[in-house]
Amino acid sequence: MTVDLVKHAAEDADVVFAARVSTQGGETRFNESSERDAGLINFLMRDRHGSPFEHTSFTFYIEAPIFVVREFFRHRAGWSYNEESGRYKQLEPVFYLPADGRSLRQIGKPGAYDFIQGDYKQKSAVSGDLRRISTEAYTTYERLLDIGVAREVARMVLPVNIYTSFYATCNARSLMHFLGLRTARENAAFRSFPQREIELVAEGMETEFARTMPLTYAAFEANGRVAP
Amino acid sequence: MTVDLVKHAAEDADVVFAARVSTQGGETRFNESSERDAGLINFLMRDRHGSPFEHTSFTFYIEAPIFVVREFFRHRAGWSYNEESGRYKQLEPVFYLPADGRSLRQIGKPGAYDFIQGDYKQKSAVSGDLRRISTEAYTTYERLLDIGVAREVARMVLPVNIYTSFYATCNARSLMHFLGLRTARENAAFRSFPQREIELVAEGMETEFARTMPLTYAAFEANGRVAP
Amino acid sequence: MTVDLVKHAAEDADVVFAARVSTQGGETRFNESSERDAGLINFLMRDRHGSPFEHTSFTFYIEAPIFVVREFFRHRAGWSYNEESGRYKQLEPVFYLPADGRSLRQIGKPGAYDFIQGDYKQKSAVSGDLRRISTEAYTTYERLLDIGVAREVARMVLPVNIYTSFYATCNARSLMHFLGLRTARENAAFRSFPQREIELVAEGMETEFARTMPLTYAAFEANGRVAP
Amino acid sequence: MTVDLVKHAAEDADVVFAARVSTQGGETRFNESSERDAGLINFLMRDRHGSPFEHTSFTFYIEAPIFVVREFFRHRAGWSYNEESGRYKQLEPVFYLPADGRSLRQIGKPGAYDFIQGDYKQKSAVSGDLRRISTEAYTTYERLLDIGVAREVARMVLPVNIYTSFYATCNARSLMHFLGLRTARENAAFRSFPQREIELVAEGMETEFARTMPLTYAAFEANGRVAP
Repeated sequence: MTVDLVKHAAEDADVVFAARVSTQGGETRFNESSERDAGLINFLMRDRHGSPFEHTSFTFYIEAPIFVVREFFRHRAGWSYNEESGRYKQLEPVFYLPADGRSLRQIGKPGAYDFIQGDYKQKSAVSGDLRRISTEAYTTYERLLDIGVAREVARMVLPVNIYTSFYATCNARSLMHFLGLRTARENAAFRSFPQREIELVAEGMETEFARTMPLTYAAFEANGRVAP
Repeated sequence: MTVDLVKHAAEDADVVFAARVSTQGGETRFNESSERDAGLINFLMRDRHGSPFEHTSFTFYIEAPIFVVREFFRHRAGWSYNEESGRYKQLEPVFYLPADGRSLRQIGKPGAYDFIQGDYKQKSAVSGDLRRISTEAYTTYERLLDIGVAREVARMVLPVNIYTSFYATCNARSLMHFLGLRTARENAAFRSFPQREIELVAEGMETEFARTMPLTYAAFEANGRVAP
Repeated sequence: MTVDLVKHAAEDADVVFAARVSTQGGETRFNESSERDAGLINFLMRDRHGSPFEHTSFTFYIEAPIFVVREFFRHRAGWSYNEESGRYKQLEPVFYLPADGRSLRQIGKPGAYDFIQGDYKQKSAVSGDLRRISTEAYTTYERLLDIGVAREVARMVLPVNIYTSFYATCNARSLMHFLGLRTARENAAFRSFPQREIELVAEGMETEFARTMPLTYAAFEANGRVAP
Repeated sequence: MTVDLVKHAAEDADVVFAARVSTQGGETRFNESSERDAGLINFLMRDRHGSPFEHTSFTFYIEAPIFVVREFFRHRAGWSYNEESGRYKQLEPVFYLPADGRSLRQIGKPGAYDFIQGDYKQKSAVSGDLRRISTEAYTTYERLLDIGVAREVARMVLPVNIYTSFYATCNARSLMHFLGLRTARENAAFRSFPQREIELVAEGMETEFARTMPLTYAAFEANGRVAP
């Protein structure tokens, strides 16, 4: 997975400015001690005053397999997307294969799975089958293109573990909503069961978020990872 | 493709009621001649007063291949979705194959393709290859499930022509926006180049829309199929 | 305040149908015991699976003063509005006056006010001043209209306690979000400090919501009144 | 009216990058001649490919009277707001008065008004009445505050021409949608009848937009000021 923060206009001060317009109008200044600002941000997070977190913007460039991107694009409010098109260009032969430590077995029922390590037979089947199907599908894709079949038709043979790339733009509020749902953490106020592969993408985004808005991130962590 | 209108709360009167609150407050009645109401709806459409069209609701149940659903779910504003999950259930072995008359060749450049009929060799390759890859991928998928691999992992081998199912809820405004972009029509005020398969879904939805909101639909047609 | 549920396409079954498409595809039926359905709805609410609640639609007709409507229209996601226009019609001389029991004094600091009863002097001033200014402003408004001043200009003299009317359409998810923020309840998981007048509107809407979707409402109540 | 562009992360290159990911994946570069980029932007605008314009962010600080802000906040999709609160702070005694050249009379019917200059009597009444009511309302407001009435109650006497202040964040697509509806221009593809006061705000925003995204702005102008 590739997660690049292409650009951002997002800092903790944006939240404070937007929030203080409520109580101070246009007289707002950001010359106060960070302790007071941190307190304000924590108050906004805790009592679910979400709008001050929206005056921020993050643009990510992400490479991930189709089955991850399908989950990602379910996030609508506060998200903008542009993705590589299988109609307009030939897709590259890059496919996702689970890393060696990836849990392969699920136990329990929908909404409450536990995942555990696979045995040798499972690991070997997953690895071998994904390689085989990916290769065979891509070879077929290329042959269809070679004989003049339209890209939008030829791509129908490609499996959902093929990589695609996209730009995603969001604000801090929509980003926190995404992170809360697409990671599984001990300190979360509600239970999430993200597929590990989208969690990998979320972790990459979370690192950038924590770095650019440390006070906001601390308040998110301190309040059960619930987006305001 | 399956397109079922599961339920709807949408009629032309909804638009008229919502619009007349502007000029008449709570005194609105719908006892006027349809000619006057049609005129109002046409005025709203033409001059892009979009909000009166939003007090309506359509819920569709749709079955379509993944490559179509990926395009569908790009529509965010005014749309709600719930889709069959490859993490929670085993997907059925139902795959999309282009019908015999489906154009298989593209001519021109991105954004302005023309599609023309394929020759015998292309038809035969598309049909044969899609069948072969679909079957082989599904056989592999089943085998991985049989030896205990988690559904969310096993599904990675499945191609994007496998069918999925979902509920989609929208209002008349978001529906018209979708129809304008996902169909190609002579009377449209702007050019669209939808993939034929999503256009098939759009056509099914358009039939239901035209039936339930005939005045609104007529105004949409009369104004270049531009959503207000 | 007037709160009329004009129409709705919303019942608990909608939530269950949309949720079960994840695990059962198009095979979903609603012939199960309500205990099992209630359990599913509670699970969705608790673990913040919000999308199944969106396949529902409520249209309200509301009459409220401008200062309330200004707060109301801050709700954007999943809301549609059409309001009486001061540009297109003459506004009626109907003004909001606090009822006798309305708390008139605030104690504490922003975000954590307590409200307590006013004394006689305060009650009398509020009542007298609102009547006087409302009357005088409306008399002035009428005189400006009489001499031919445009409605959109003449209305500038009107105070924010004048009534306006609007249609609002939402789904169960956006409605719960609104109710969580615009009411103050003991069992809420977070603190809200709504102005009493918008809470009156919210209470009217909550009554209709509880009646039309009793299982969903029970789950909302049982989970801290946090919208999923 | 005050319209300050507080910050922005928006340039024409953002549109080009986002659009090219469709056809070139992650290989996109912005080293091409501006003529080619301008052509791409114009193509996207004309054929209503709106999403590439969303990877941009503008934050404005605006001071305007309440009757303008009420129209402004009707824009929901792609907009974020935080406004000065009459519950949390005492509002300043700043009121809107029409400038001398402001047309005061409307001719025609709703949705198709023409506005013409007022005569001396009208000008004098508007100016005098607005001053008188504003002053009297504010004096009353202060007196209510002085005797300990809560701000959220005292403000009910204030007229809609009092100024408020807010932060608004949008992207280039939502901004163009706003500009198309809130200005009246000869080259527009559809008719708008904005109230002059919100058009003043829109003009201030348009100046900043034209300066920061000149190619996008030119394409907007060249395509009938219809947001893609």
